[in-house]
Amino acid sequence: MSSSPTPDHLTPRTTVRRIASRGRYDRATIDAILDEALICHVGFVDDGHPFVIPTIHARDGDRMLLHGSNASRMLRCLAGGADACVTVTLLDGLVLARSAFHHSMNYRSVVILGKGEAVTDPAEKRAALDVLVERVIPGRSADARGPSQNELSATTVVSIPITEASAKVRTGPASDDEADYALDVWAGVIPLTMLAGEPQPDPQLPIGIAIPGYAACYRRPTGGR
Amino acid sequence: MSSSPTPDHLTPRTTVRRIASRGRYDRATIDAILDEALICHVGFVDDGHPFVIPTIHARDGDRMLLHGSNASRMLRCLAGGADACVTVTLLDGLVLARSAFHHSMNYRSVVILGKGEAVTDPAEKRAALDVLVERVIPGRSADARGPSQNELSATTVVSIPITEASAKVRTGPASDDEADYALDVWAGVIPLTMLAGEPQPDPQLPIGIAIPGYAACYRRPTGGR
Repeated sequence: MSSSPTPDHLTPRTTVRRIASRGRYDRATIDAILDEALICHVGFVDDGHPFVIPTIHARDGDRMLLHGSNASRMLRCLAGGADACVTVTLLDGLVLARSAFHHSMNYRSVVILGKGEAVTDPAEKRAALDVLVERVIPGRSADARGPSQNELSATTVVSIPITEASAKVRTGPASDDEADYALDVWAGVIPLTMLAGEPQPDPQLPIGIAIPGYAACYRRPTGGR
Repeated sequence: MSSSPTPDHLTPRTTVRRIASRGRYDRATIDAILDEALICHVGFVDDGHPFVIPTIHARDGDRMLLHGSNASRMLRCLAGGADACVTVTLLDGLVLARSAFHHSMNYRSVVILGKGEAVTDPAEKRAALDVLVERVIPGRSADARGPSQNELSATTVVSIPITEASAKVRTGPASDDEADYALDVWAGVIPLTMLAGEPQPDPQLPIGIAIPGYAACYRRPTGGR
């Protein structure tokens, strides 16, 4: 889309084809979307059928970290080196056009194609779980009790390299047909935001344990905007 | 999970296996999640590799409707009868436990497995596009200019039957290990909600066109809660 050198993580499979002008291939844009989003949707093929499972993720430099129970089919497939597609989507608004046809959404999404790899080294696995907690709730890993040996053993951690990835971004108002701008129809954007509400203390919490700052004022990083 | 008769849309492939107690198989729960969510993530296999693409959806009775450009690879695959997995996820909160291990999220998700089918009859296609606009922004289809013949021809509409589907739901505080309840660690839920902000009028909007009520007070249906 631009005359800049083709980044390594851009391949024909990850080049945005539909509405190519929305394609973004710089790692800063890709990373900001990955870091703001809390969940991804992981696609894999099992028994010949595609499955899509939502899960927490954390970007750790040039790789995505996923985790869960050893019993998870998704993690077993990925740890076994299956092909995967990890898609992250942030919804920013509804775009109301004069014509039904030009209605749209403002969004920022990333598609990563690759193969998973199990993180098995105990120290690396422990570090990866710390990263997962910290990316979701910065500050939390210092407070929570760390994983026991049994908990570590029961958990599968998988990494997927960010080597084949692209972002797609839509912003701004609708692009209506020229003739439609004269229509007596309201047009514009309804912005959408994921907001954190007031923390709800656990009913079994002893009296006197204050809500930590990271929970009281929870926000996602918004480097992408 | 209950002694109720097995619904037709529940199959071994859609039976929740990980944490089976979170499985929900009644259509009321499934439909409420599908109706509240604005987007789904569609999984399909192309050239042997899984892809996951986010897109708007609308439930129309016992089927999901998707639409887009004829040039969309995802829609071409689905219109050609490819196997698909449509996953819808609503994020409701971050669950902070005393142990890192028991941290979780509150969410409501639906997984639908099936094959797409193109909606080709012109009248049915027009009706499907009306449903899509109305599900995203109730009231809007009466105001916006309807699709022209060319716009209809340029659009692919695909339906996926809700015949093999299940929901997974997590609510409430963490389930910590008994010994951990004595720890001096705050625990609870940070609720998350998708909120609509103040509508941003299109810069080219003529003076005097008021913001319609459906945009000024935009909310998603929340039958699932």
